[in-house]
Amino acid sequence: MERDLKQLIAQMTLEEKAGLCSGQDFWRLKGIERLGIPSIMVTDGPHGLRKQKEGADHVGLFDSVPATCFPSAAGVACSWDRELIQSMGRALGEECQAEDVSVLLGPGVNIKRSPLCGRNFEYFSEDPYLSSQMASHHIQGVQSQGVGTSLKHFAANNQEHRRMTSDSVVDERTLREIYLASFEGAVTEAQPWTVMSSYNKVNGTFASENAILLNDILREEWGFQGFVVSDWGAVNERVDGLAAGLELEMPSSNGEGDRKIVEAVTSGKLSEAVLDQAVERVLRIVFKAADGSKANAEYDKSAHHQLARRIARESMVLLKNDEHMLPLRREGEIAVIGELAVKPRYQGGGSSHVNPTKLDDILEAFTESAGENVQVAFAKGYELNRDDADDDLTAEALRIAAKADRAVLFAGLPDRYESEGYDRSHLRLPANQIELIQAVAAVQPNLVIVLSNGAPIEMPWISSAKAVLEAYLGGQALGGAIADLLFGDANPCGKLAETFPKRLQDTPAHLYYGGEKDTVEYREGIFVGYRYYDAIKLEPLFPFGHGLSYTTFSYSNLVVPVKEMRDDEQMTIYVDVTNTGDRRGKEIVQVYVRELKTSVIRPDKELKGFAKVELEPGETKTAAFTLDKRSFAFYDAGLKDWRVETGAFELLIGKSCAEIGLVGQVNVISTTAPVHVTVTRNSTIGDLLADGRTRTAITNFLQQNNPFGALGDAGGEASEMVEAMLRYLPLRALISFSGGRFSEADLESLVGELNAILGKGSVE
Amino acid sequence: MERDLKQLIAQMTLEEKAGLCSGQDFWRLKGIERLGIPSIMVTDGPHGLRKQKEGADHVGLFDSVPATCFPSAAGVACSWDRELIQSMGRALGEECQAEDVSVLLGPGVNIKRSPLCGRNFEYFSEDPYLSSQMASHHIQGVQSQGVGTSLKHFAANNQEHRRMTSDSVVDERTLREIYLASFEGAVTEAQPWTVMSSYNKVNGTFASENAILLNDILREEWGFQGFVVSDWGAVNERVDGLAAGLELEMPSSNGEGDRKIVEAVTSGKLSEAVLDQAVERVLRIVFKAADGSKANAEYDKSAHHQLARRIARESMVLLKNDEHMLPLRREGEIAVIGELAVKPRYQGGGSSHVNPTKLDDILEAFTESAGENVQVAFAKGYELNRDDADDDLTAEALRIAAKADRAVLFAGLPDRYESEGYDRSHLRLPANQIELIQAVAAVQPNLVIVLSNGAPIEMPWISSAKAVLEAYLGGQALGGAIADLLFGDANPCGKLAETFPKRLQDTPAHLYYGGEKDTVEYREGIFVGYRYYDAIKLEPLFPFGHGLSYTTFSYSNLVVPVKEMRDDEQMTIYVDVTNTGDRRGKEIVQVYVRELKTSVIRPDKELKGFAKVELEPGETKTAAFTLDKRSFAFYDAGLKDWRVETGAFELLIGKSCAEIGLVGQVNVISTTAPVHVTVTRNSTIGDLLADGRTRTAITNFLQQNNPFGALGDAGGEASEMVEAMLRYLPLRALISFSGGRFSEADLESLVGELNAILGKGSVE
Repeated sequence: MERDLKQLIAQMTLEEKAGLCSGQDFWRLKGIERLGIPSIMVTDGPHGLRKQKEGADHVGLFDSVPATCFPSAAGVACSWDRELIQSMGRALGEECQAEDVSVLLGPGVNIKRSPLCGRNFEYFSEDPYLSSQMASHHIQGVQSQGVGTSLKHFAANNQEHRRMTSDSVVDERTLREIYLASFEGAVTEAQPWTVMSSYNKVNGTFASENAILLNDILREEWGFQGFVVSDWGAVNERVDGLAAGLELEMPSSNGEGDRKIVEAVTSGKLSEAVLDQAVERVLRIVFKAADGSKANAEYDKSAHHQLARRIARESMVLLKNDEHMLPLRREGEIAVIGELAVKPRYQGGGSSHVNPTKLDDILEAFTESAGENVQVAFAKGYELNRDDADDDLTAEALRIAAKADRAVLFAGLPDRYESEGYDRSHLRLPANQIELIQAVAAVQPNLVIVLSNGAPIEMPWISSAKAVLEAYLGGQALGGAIADLLFGDANPCGKLAETFPKRLQDTPAHLYYGGEKDTVEYREGIFVGYRYYDAIKLEPLFPFGHGLSYTTFSYSNLVVPVKEMRDDEQMTIYVDVTNTGDRRGKEIVQVYVRELKTSVIRPDKELKGFAKVELEPGETKTAAFTLDKRSFAFYDAGLKDWRVETGAFELLIGKSCAEIGLVGQVNVISTTAPVHVTVTRNSTIGDLLADGRTRTAITNFLQQNNPFGALGDAGGEASEMVEAMLRYLPLRALISFSGGRFSEADLESLVGELNAILGKGSVE
Repeated sequence: MERDLKQLIAQMTLEEKAGLCSGQDFWRLKGIERLGIPSIMVTDGPHGLRKQKEGADHVGLFDSVPATCFPSAAGVACSWDRELIQSMGRALGEECQAEDVSVLLGPGVNIKRSPLCGRNFEYFSEDPYLSSQMASHHIQGVQSQGVGTSLKHFAANNQEHRRMTSDSVVDERTLREIYLASFEGAVTEAQPWTVMSSYNKVNGTFASENAILLNDILREEWGFQGFVVSDWGAVNERVDGLAAGLELEMPSSNGEGDRKIVEAVTSGKLSEAVLDQAVERVLRIVFKAADGSKANAEYDKSAHHQLARRIARESMVLLKNDEHMLPLRREGEIAVIGELAVKPRYQGGGSSHVNPTKLDDILEAFTESAGENVQVAFAKGYELNRDDADDDLTAEALRIAAKADRAVLFAGLPDRYESEGYDRSHLRLPANQIELIQAVAAVQPNLVIVLSNGAPIEMPWISSAKAVLEAYLGGQALGGAIADLLFGDANPCGKLAETFPKRLQDTPAHLYYGGEKDTVEYREGIFVGYRYYDAIKLEPLFPFGHGLSYTTFSYSNLVVPVKEMRDDEQMTIYVDVTNTGDRRGKEIVQVYVRELKTSVIRPDKELKGFAKVELEPGETKTAAFTLDKRSFAFYDAGLKDWRVETGAFELLIGKSCAEIGLVGQVNVISTTAPVHVTVTRNSTIGDLLADGRTRTAITNFLQQNNPFGALGDAGGEASEMVEAMLRYLPLRALISFSGGRFSEADLESLVGELNAILGKGSVE
């Protein structure tokens, strides 16, 4: 319904307008009855509704209505399946409608700077392209149901440690290429109704009052149309935030924020136009929600449970499968070990914690799936709520493991090991689980490990297991999904959306993660995730993009249609994927781009495309990937824009970032207007020789005035040194090395001459 | 002789004064005859005189008078012998006197940020303490002869790539703890007559016009008394440099610099007092040189050659010695292989390149030392001036290697692989040498490798060699020294002054070394050298401080005399060192300090003392190490001073940084006045609880006003999350989370109350 919002706003008192910029309570915006403005409700979170019951605690933590708990983002991202996460979004939207929730607070697209971040389970990836693709399809799914999303936590909120006061110090290029890019793609492709500003500061200014982030980048550059809401309690100075582009403070500040806004407008400190604009932005979404609201909506709990099972199945990652250990044959005796099989860890702690409509018991699902011909024995093995081994539990586990012909051990991180609110301090499983794995492996070589955890763990025991299935936090239907995969009713098709390092010390941000007091320096820069492991050729435990299947795939016929393209053109490349095994399966084909020669420090390669292809045995399909400027560009902080350097790029088609199958090549021609260069007394001879415009002039000059004369002919390292000295020589140093033949006046005249040449046109 | 310099300066014209601030030519300062001011000469370089002959090239590169070529700094540092380098300094001083040179341009103390730096052979170490100790004793040696030194290149000049225009971007703490510390110790302990400013910029300003470096830190803080000279051609804007504390421009600018100074004084842009002070500083040294000058001085070339041999012997490092392969028995047949045995690489290229008085032929020295009972066969093996293998040379080498009962293969970097002026691009030996080593090892398992190189190399072939002797660039007497060590007439006693990495990619600055155009970011910060390998627990090829001997040593009886000390006190600790083998030998005992709990990001441990102890078989001596504030402090950039945190420190007595033998402990009490803390709306509850002053008040407050009430009792990760939320909560967020019970007025009153408590005294 079209409304004249400006006219509506004109009817409001100043106090009413200020009031619309903060919550009524913990979860609701204010309405204005006399003007027909409804009070809408917003609610956590990305993988399931966490709508608090009436009368629950006032800090919004506990006691929510039942909702479907889908797998958390860290897992879903491993599906690399845009359609799948979109269907999850649709289901979430339906549940919101059923619960009268107007905006779902998610998805979260913060980049996994370190696996230690306690909230990583809520985020998608270490790669901004994959992360933004997952996010935009999540958003499209939710919003297709007339329900909004809140893309969060904007921005550079990559740790829980001191998150409400820490300052993320990130250079602009890193911010753009890694941390903001994850948001950018989601905003431009899916237009979330709202964006949530994060608790932390970014380069000295709170994200919630950061005009560069909220006004300049989010709105001006990316064209965001919705409103910005603070993370709960993230507002520092309300008026500064409003001026910087933060429309809505949540939760209620019990009138304090509103009062400050009124005072600021009254005193002239804040223009009323800014307030009016904020109100208009809020109202546009409020009415969108009202218009989209479906009365008496319901959803099919059982269907959503089945969807959760399918998503879990398509997200879990088969990390290792020696000797075709999996799938399990439906015969003989299998020992199932581990308390996690009966007390599943299926979601993370914090604001995303859902009260599930139903919860699979893994052991039950497993036993049912195993069927009559399998004898299943169970032992608890360890206690989840403690770290030290229990001799009796161990003995029981060993007894059944030794007797069976295979063992499936459920391991993972207990709830207290990872949660919103605090970071992990190490990457280990609890000691009792590590001991148990090693003890069981000693009596039962046919050992399968199923992991439940929200982020990578070290696996010093990896050689003890023949197969490892990474189930992540698989949501309420994880039991069925795990059984489907273990027995081969479904074929694993997830691939890692993050690197699993061998050791914490191998991780890129290790030295400076967490920071000192409230300063967190992102010193590793753009080298996050596989960009780091690639650059220093450090082998991880499992690389980004890795995941096995019960069938096999081959790639062929890479088609790169042109040898050369301009960076304002697009190009679609094609590759054939064949199922070379004997089962139906899905393969995730990844496209990485590598610049062969670059003037700036760049990652070895970057993910720029992917496709998930389902294939019958023997079947071949062609996957297509469209590349554009951003596939080749880096962010040029000097230019304040993305820039492609003219040159050759490799197109790497991989099964993972470490397993590249096919390589193509294309030359890309930059269309960026060359930067204007001015020659100064500190321009170097080498740079002037490298520049097509000045090359002739400086060559001619050197023929008469080479300060080193014939010394470069001395041979050996002396020649090389003289050549290097000349190359790196600033023009002004000609005075020192000319033995009196070159004066300051000569220098001025040379600089002038060179600038005159450049003045005829600018060069890069 | 006392002179009234001010009175002398008063007699000068403005032009004469300006003239004293630049060179007369490439190597001389100007004199003023009518005022009895002599023209003194300065000359490269740190490990030998490079005095150009009259009429040599005008850019000062080639054709110098003969002088003793001592081992270059990278090698000498491995002696860890203060006395030894002091004796080298004395010899250098004698040679300067004999050649009428007043100031020797060295030593160089730039920190080895990356092994790729082409000039690393001229520098001592990756560790500032070891580097400054070597430098100060070098300086004391030279200056004891009435000759000055020039401590160079000040500062943060850690690459040759674009060295004349590059900008080293280094955070202040890293600059202080790593890069400046290496200069600081040398200045405060040895007062070099001059300091040479480097070519590069530091944090945006050329080192040669950097007032923070030259005036504030070097003079004000460190008490430097001499003058600052530019690196040759490093002056950018002469007047800016003079104002910033650069007294002398070198070489001559043919009057251009002088003219600019005169103009600046005349126009009032530059105070004449600044010029007068610069002239006074220059004159003080000029007259010191004149007074110290010894007429008709001579030196004993043969004695200096012997000294060069001794220094080389005590500096070379026995990296590996399996099965007691070394020392070589004087019997049987030995194959000597490698062109480096007859064309030794004994010094690096560039300004430090000396014309030696004599040069050992390694093969000759080896054969002579081997004596009559050994048959020595020689094969060239490879050509130094090319990288590809020569089949004939290989065949010949294999033939003699197979026939002999041992082989000694001389390998190393050709001159063109490392030099002043440009950086290395990899850490490999030439391909033909690698191939040869592997081929020889295949026919002769008793293989000894002797390496000549100025900086670390990768050794993928290390398992092929039973013994490896690192000879570095051993100076003109390297042949005798190598023979002494190989046959056991001398016992190896050098230890590495730098880490040898397994791979280039393992080095700390790998991702950002070299920089982009003229910007070089020191992103690894304080994690340089072993500080990095320690922190990420990355095993290098050979750790810092590593070196073997033909005997063995044990450490015992570590005495830490007090359990607690104040940081304004000193403490001497003692450790007994015993020669447990059957040969006389020298052991380098290293003391590292580790803070057990720190609020800032610190290296795992840092070198704070070392001693070299000579012991007869069975003999025990006690080594003593004095520790003071700087042994425990870090540089606090906020405080702008060194600061010790009160707490426990471990004292680690090691044979290398990776082999710690004994561990003591001491508590150090900080005497730094606590920083004044102001409570703000963004002070966190956790910080206020951690502070002894505010703990009670905030605890009392929380008893009434805990925003999370009893929610922390929920158990499991929920409790941990609530606890963390409270800990990280800024006071202002109490408004959002109090459900209306806490207002902005309450916040102001709470902040005021807490500040009133703090006002009674400040806390840390």
